[in-house]
Amino acid sequence: MQIEIVAIGDEVLRGAVVNSNAAWMSRHLLERGFSVARHTALPDDLCLLESGLKEALSRSSLVITTGGLGSTCDDHTRQVAAKLFGSDFHFNEQVASDLCQRFGDGLQSLKDQATVPSQADLLLNRIGTAPGLIFSKEEKMLILLPGVPQEMEQMLLEQVIPYLIQRFPHVRQKISIQMHFCHLYESLVDPILRELKEIYPAVEVGIYPGLALLTVSLHAEEKAQAQIEGFCAALKQRFATYLFSMKSGKIEQVIHDLFLQKKKRLALAESCTGGMMAARLTALPGASAYFLGSLVVYSNQMKQDLLGVSEKTLGEKGAVSRETVVEMLEGVFERTEANFGIAVVGIAGPSGGSKEKPVGTVWAALGERGQKPDVGTFLTRGDRQMRISSTTNHLFGACWRLISQGIAPFPFFQ
Amino acid sequence: MQIEIVAIGDEVLRGAVVNSNAAWMSRHLLERGFSVARHTALPDDLCLLESGLKEALSRSSLVITTGGLGSTCDDHTRQVAAKLFGSDFHFNEQVASDLCQRFGDGLQSLKDQATVPSQADLLLNRIGTAPGLIFSKEEKMLILLPGVPQEMEQMLLEQVIPYLIQRFPHVRQKISIQMHFCHLYESLVDPILRELKEIYPAVEVGIYPGLALLTVSLHAEEKAQAQIEGFCAALKQRFATYLFSMKSGKIEQVIHDLFLQKKKRLALAESCTGGMMAARLTALPGASAYFLGSLVVYSNQMKQDLLGVSEKTLGEKGAVSRETVVEMLEGVFERTEANFGIAVVGIAGPSGGSKEKPVGTVWAALGERGQKPDVGTFLTRGDRQMRISSTTNHLFGACWRLISQGIAPFPFFQ
Repeated sequence: MQIEIVAIGDEVLRGAVVNSNAAWMSRHLLERGFSVARHTALPDDLCLLESGLKEALSRSSLVITTGGLGSTCDDHTRQVAAKLFGSDFHFNEQVASDLCQRFGDGLQSLKDQATVPSQADLLLNRIGTAPGLIFSKEEKMLILLPGVPQEMEQMLLEQVIPYLIQRFPHVRQKISIQMHFCHLYESLVDPILRELKEIYPAVEVGIYPGLALLTVSLHAEEKAQAQIEGFCAALKQRFATYLFSMKSGKIEQVIHDLFLQKKKRLALAESCTGGMMAARLTALPGASAYFLGSLVVYSNQMKQDLLGVSEKTLGEKGAVSRETVVEMLEGVFERTEANFGIAVVGIAGPSGGSKEKPVGTVWAALGERGQKPDVGTFLTRGDRQMRISSTTNHLFGACWRLISQGIAPFPFFQ
Repeated sequence: MQIEIVAIGDEVLRGAVVNSNAAWMSRHLLERGFSVARHTALPDDLCLLESGLKEALSRSSLVITTGGLGSTCDDHTRQVAAKLFGSDFHFNEQVASDLCQRFGDGLQSLKDQATVPSQADLLLNRIGTAPGLIFSKEEKMLILLPGVPQEMEQMLLEQVIPYLIQRFPHVRQKISIQMHFCHLYESLVDPILRELKEIYPAVEVGIYPGLALLTVSLHAEEKAQAQIEGFCAALKQRFATYLFSMKSGKIEQVIHDLFLQKKKRLALAESCTGGMMAARLTALPGASAYFLGSLVVYSNQMKQDLLGVSEKTLGEKGAVSRETVVEMLEGVFERTEANFGIAVVGIAGPSGGSKEKPVGTVWAALGERGQKPDVGTFLTRGDRQMRISSTTNHLFGACWRLISQGIAPFPFFQ
């Protein structure tokens, strides 16, 4: 079975939108044994769309599209698919009543969205208005999904993948292992991966550096299970204290789970990360069970007024200094009921650096209430956004290694 | 002239890497008048690669590939391209000496990288080791670029685009206009776009809904300049108070510019947005000139301790209430030197909702120091992340409309 993914929309071909849907879908399909042979992006042009989908269906037995399912003037995917599969349209009461219930009966696109191809199976859209569609004929299948990532993701995971597993029970899941590391660099891992690849040749290896994080992915056929397990165990043993997860690549998920498990309460004092650390933690449902909040003290005056950092320290040592960040952490413990705190200052750039404190310089303090905090400095690379993200990842990594393994976070391994 | 972009690499089809190169290239090519008709991603498989490139060259006159130019076992792009254009290989002294100079004569891939197809023009790689290649025959052109974004970007901007402009002097730059709106919904704009499209048929229209934001993009040939200007002016007139920018689609950029221009100082009190508002503002360089900080008071205790919200209010009215958010804003003005403040509470979900206050309920207060604040409630849709982002966009939109145009932000137009 050959699978292709087709993104539809001028915005993709104009470069206004990066087609991240294709990667996301490929990853999740591959996990269930469905490997994708081609990605395509096609424009909102009736003729090019029709010929593009025809080509894809002639090459492959399953084509999954994203986008072009809306009811505006530039959405043609349903029409083209219905034409290719010789289907007419009808008004579907069930879709209409679901839309009514979720969006009220004033929804302008209701009639349009509830008018669906008669020969397609419907996929429920729990978030947006456009239902997904499955066309099937003579060993060829065309699945249409919305282009909005959240809508597509929910539909693929909850409906499409279970449907495919049922329809193609012979497809064998490949074994796939994701190993997520913090505080570890590509140049350290790469030689080890090459050695292990010689010992376990049936294992395919990918190495994907992130911002202060690193993911190694291993893939193998089921028959090579012993090899992939051997590979994984060897890597685990070599870099045990850096391996923060084999599920989520989000280091904040590990912090979340750790604080819930240890029943600790966390509060932050953020300057250079500007709220990013808090935003990453609160993006996860249930954060309120351990996360008290963050004092985003961007100005020096707020560092004084809200955290009690002394004017003298700020004047003599500067905002980006060991002394300031220590006083910020003390302020967190004085003003909140946290029993663990992280404070961070830095120069995110592009300007504001000096010879002594270049752009990218970060000072951070973290620790338990009543204990001497760990305090240290490190340098981040890249542009402003990359520096803010890698500071966040670095500090979450440091916090995880400290609490779960008692490893002193400074100096960083870099 | 039809143009296609082809990304080559299993990592793209496995979803380990998002193909952001295609969007980047499309955007830069379009700016110079070269519009791209299709994106494709192909695997590192000799047969599939050959057939995929053959197909692309049969459809289009210019195909640009990225990736597969390295010297490892899975890199086949040069071989396949040389076969398609009937070219042999030769050792190129110039490439070899350039590589020697930049990487030393110990470079393992030197011989391989300096052995290039005889019938291709070379593109200098100033960053990495693989030169780019231009094949050309009978009105068909195939350009091979490296997959590493920095190497590709430098080569495209400095060498490929100048080459294309010289080779195709008749290609005219298209006129392209982006209009970014807040507090406006697709269903309200779409009928107007359809009307305008009848009056100005030479204008291509795209409509891209974001989270509480909406972008309309207009494109036209240079000869249709009057039409695209008419279209744009009509749309501007109809939705003037919602049009926040014709440059950046980031509403926080407008807040940034507005506060700098008005010389106001902003501070926030965030509960349900969890630091996202502060993080979005501080992502922009120079935010420290107007942004003092944010009190991310996620727990009720912090709402009391740091902002002085009364226990009585929290007990009787609840954290998600008009009274709480008003007291939070008062706390911001008492504890900071801001002259403008925004406070927000809400239920981001997925749990925590009730019949009276369903998941998605938001209460917000905003205004000048010393003035009666604007206070209101609205409901956000989608999942947790979407609710947090749309709350942020909604409130930045409200803040911009209030300060720049004196428009009361509540109730929202929704």
